[in-house]
Amino acid sequence: MTATAAAAPTAVAEHAASPTYTPARVDGVAAVLPVVGADTLVPLVDGRRVPYANLDVAASAPALQAVADHVDRVLPLYASVHRGAGYLSQVSTALYEQARRTIGAFVGAREDDLVLVTRNTTDSLNLLAGCVPADPATGAPGRVLVLDIEHHANLLPWQRDTDATVLAGGPSVAATLDAVREELRDGGPYALVAITGASNVTGEALSVAAVVEIAHAAGARVVLDGAQLVPHRPFSLAASGVDYVAFSGHKTYAPYGAGALVGRRDWLDAGTPYLAGGGAVRRVRVAETTWHEGPARHEAGSPNVIGAVALAAAAEALRAVDPAELAVHEAALRDRLVAGLAEIDRVQVVRCWADAVDPVGVVTFTVAGYDPGLVAAFLSAEHGIGVRDGRFCAHPLLGRLGFDAGAVRASVGVGTPGADVERLVAAVRSLVADGPQAQYDVVDGLWVVVDDPRPVPEGLGLDGLLATAALGDPTGCTPIL
Amino acid sequence: MTATAAAAPTAVAEHAASPTYTPARVDGVAAVLPVVGADTLVPLVDGRRVPYANLDVAASAPALQAVADHVDRVLPLYASVHRGAGYLSQVSTALYEQARRTIGAFVGAREDDLVLVTRNTTDSLNLLAGCVPADPATGAPGRVLVLDIEHHANLLPWQRDTDATVLAGGPSVAATLDAVREELRDGGPYALVAITGASNVTGEALSVAAVVEIAHAAGARVVLDGAQLVPHRPFSLAASGVDYVAFSGHKTYAPYGAGALVGRRDWLDAGTPYLAGGGAVRRVRVAETTWHEGPARHEAGSPNVIGAVALAAAAEALRAVDPAELAVHEAALRDRLVAGLAEIDRVQVVRCWADAVDPVGVVTFTVAGYDPGLVAAFLSAEHGIGVRDGRFCAHPLLGRLGFDAGAVRASVGVGTPGADVERLVAAVRSLVADGPQAQYDVVDGLWVVVDDPRPVPEGLGLDGLLATAALGDPTGCTPIL
Repeated sequence: MTATAAAAPTAVAEHAASPTYTPARVDGVAAVLPVVGADTLVPLVDGRRVPYANLDVAASAPALQAVADHVDRVLPLYASVHRGAGYLSQVSTALYEQARRTIGAFVGAREDDLVLVTRNTTDSLNLLAGCVPADPATGAPGRVLVLDIEHHANLLPWQRDTDATVLAGGPSVAATLDAVREELRDGGPYALVAITGASNVTGEALSVAAVVEIAHAAGARVVLDGAQLVPHRPFSLAASGVDYVAFSGHKTYAPYGAGALVGRRDWLDAGTPYLAGGGAVRRVRVAETTWHEGPARHEAGSPNVIGAVALAAAAEALRAVDPAELAVHEAALRDRLVAGLAEIDRVQVVRCWADAVDPVGVVTFTVAGYDPGLVAAFLSAEHGIGVRDGRFCAHPLLGRLGFDAGAVRASVGVGTPGADVERLVAAVRSLVADGPQAQYDVVDGLWVVVDDPRPVPEGLGLDGLLATAALGDPTGCTPIL
Repeated sequence: MTATAAAAPTAVAEHAASPTYTPARVDGVAAVLPVVGADTLVPLVDGRRVPYANLDVAASAPALQAVADHVDRVLPLYASVHRGAGYLSQVSTALYEQARRTIGAFVGAREDDLVLVTRNTTDSLNLLAGCVPADPATGAPGRVLVLDIEHHANLLPWQRDTDATVLAGGPSVAATLDAVREELRDGGPYALVAITGASNVTGEALSVAAVVEIAHAAGARVVLDGAQLVPHRPFSLAASGVDYVAFSGHKTYAPYGAGALVGRRDWLDAGTPYLAGGGAVRRVRVAETTWHEGPARHEAGSPNVIGAVALAAAAEALRAVDPAELAVHEAALRDRLVAGLAEIDRVQVVRCWADAVDPVGVVTFTVAGYDPGLVAAFLSAEHGIGVRDGRFCAHPLLGRLGFDAGAVRASVGVGTPGADVERLVAAVRSLVADGPQAQYDVVDGLWVVVDDPRPVPEGLGLDGLLATAALGDPTGCTPIL
């Protein structure tokens, strides 16, 4: 692994920098599609209960109601797939393979592309990392170029399983593209360029068309981390020329444990089978094993049929919406978020690149004088708003941008009503104007309300909830130890 | 990988060999727990529609109604886990970590054991295979002893990722245990013995207590492939001394994409992180990464919260049933299956070991003169019964037992009513007495009804179903190419 510094300082928009206008309030903007749990009430420290404003959909989105309904319809048909002769086994196999086709169509798969059902984006990119061909001349691991703006899912697999070079992003999209072009020309040859379709920190991205052009000209393929892109924007492998795309069901309104890797067949057919086990092999003798090609090669064990069917249902529901309607909804919410936050004193909105166009609905910010963890705890305890704080599994980017102490991220999706955005803007404004009303303290590294009066979920027990929530690592993307 | 021949011929019970009595008909035996889809009707070639008799639960079991209901209750609470400060994020985190504890308790986890949520047994065993320590003296890969009776999931990971020795099972449980003891003594040292808790072909197993005693005496650990055991029998790591157990949600009435690996912490904390990505790391710099210990080390990316919660719900539902009731139900169905089939001329029931005790409800058989694929197609088309045919992802065992051409497997679970077993016995009897009524042919290697009049699932299209179903490999555990 080589670290290459490409360019100098980074652009962080001071408040009021990015949008050129301040949209009107968006209270009246409705969700585009109904999601499960949209009316779930949560308790506040003052004893009230309010509808939960889920502004952490970039981490995990709620299920579309259409997805949950579809799962309920399919479940009575569920049976073993692939090898069962029973009628329901054939039905389930058909449902699974149809889901595979739908998932492929959702990202504009070419006719010969493979659609692999994985568990999530991380899984997809780990799988692909095992399939990057070695240098044919030297046998050395394949070389992969990745930017430091990436989510860990699109960084660590390359560092671990391939010969990865991490290039620092430049101060603008144009400068970053120049750096990529230069590195591909002078530092190559590379097998693959791994790039996000939309940053999980800022929602921004390089021009996919430009990346494809630059990479292909240098003989490298392109894999897109689509986790934050495909829930928000129509995307097509065939139209864009991107070679692979990875994405997650739990960010695409289908939180049933399935994600996907879609793309060119040759590497996948030749690569190391991802899992060793039943289904991945044609024939097993004690001393020799013959592996399949195609999806079966990498999908050993019984597949997550329900997860795949759910992801396909989400794909169909998203494709059924007019893209213009999606775009208008998201732009309204995002623009209002950015403008509303930027108007507030002491608030700084994080940007990678001032010249990035059409970012998705992911907005990260800081409030000077308040630790990001405190801001998030305040938004939850006093306003019933769910956001994320920390470094968003993108430690290198946050470090380079000067946010090593973390930030706060608000993200919107098709199920987000405008009122949730207004609640956030108003809550941050009240924080800056009046400070928090409850008392907060850091316990085991996490900001919590002192003597939190909020009830814990039925049947759970206070100890369970606190023990769980308190074990997190405040500095970043760190689950329970 | 070394193949060691342990012992000579294998015991295959001719019909009427195994059970010492013929139970009465079991029409009146009810399912122990309700499952989703129990009343699903399927079409027959004669135009009738009958309730589907799902006798392929060893491959994938239907969801318990209690599991589906629980998922419906939890879904409105679903939000991002681990790093979200929002109330529902904390609720979801608590639900996920509580599910982890419930899953551990289900298999009697010791206090210090880790419970890893995986996708299925294959995934669990692949994960563990990456954590078997190398020989401390030589640095060579850890040595693993495995029998040839294993499902591919408990065979291929060891062959690929460790130094595996495959020992042929002996003609009896006693002889096989002797062979294991001898190999551990003379062929050791081994780090691990990998053994099934119940064969997915015959439902039989070695005595777990004996395997643990022999292995531990030789300084080796034991991992149990619990895929076919834990849905059928109470099992406890703490009580048995087994070091690791792997199992699948889709065989444990929770087909939502989650399985588990539970067991000793030290290997897992020291082993290679299973997936590279967000959540698995404490801190990422461009040039260095510090990995977590604990579950987070191996659970990079957003976890399958719904899958874990579903698996925990299934565990709780199974534990709430009196084990004696479970045992009586399953023994009645299995004994009747074995006896009823064995009474039929030309039917042979497959056994590994005549002295195996308390096999689970998995019964494999052949009908002389009929290809297993034809038997399975007949049972589906003319009787609405779902079974599996082939070699059950256990090619070495089927080969050694002389069933290289495959066999037919019927399996029962808590949702199986006795009437389904009677339907199977009657159907096989009618096949032997009168032959099939429809016309069958092999198309692309799969037995199908000629001019099958049965409708295909709504919205699917005939082409889709046939294209999918026809692509299977008739010889074994082989999904779509």
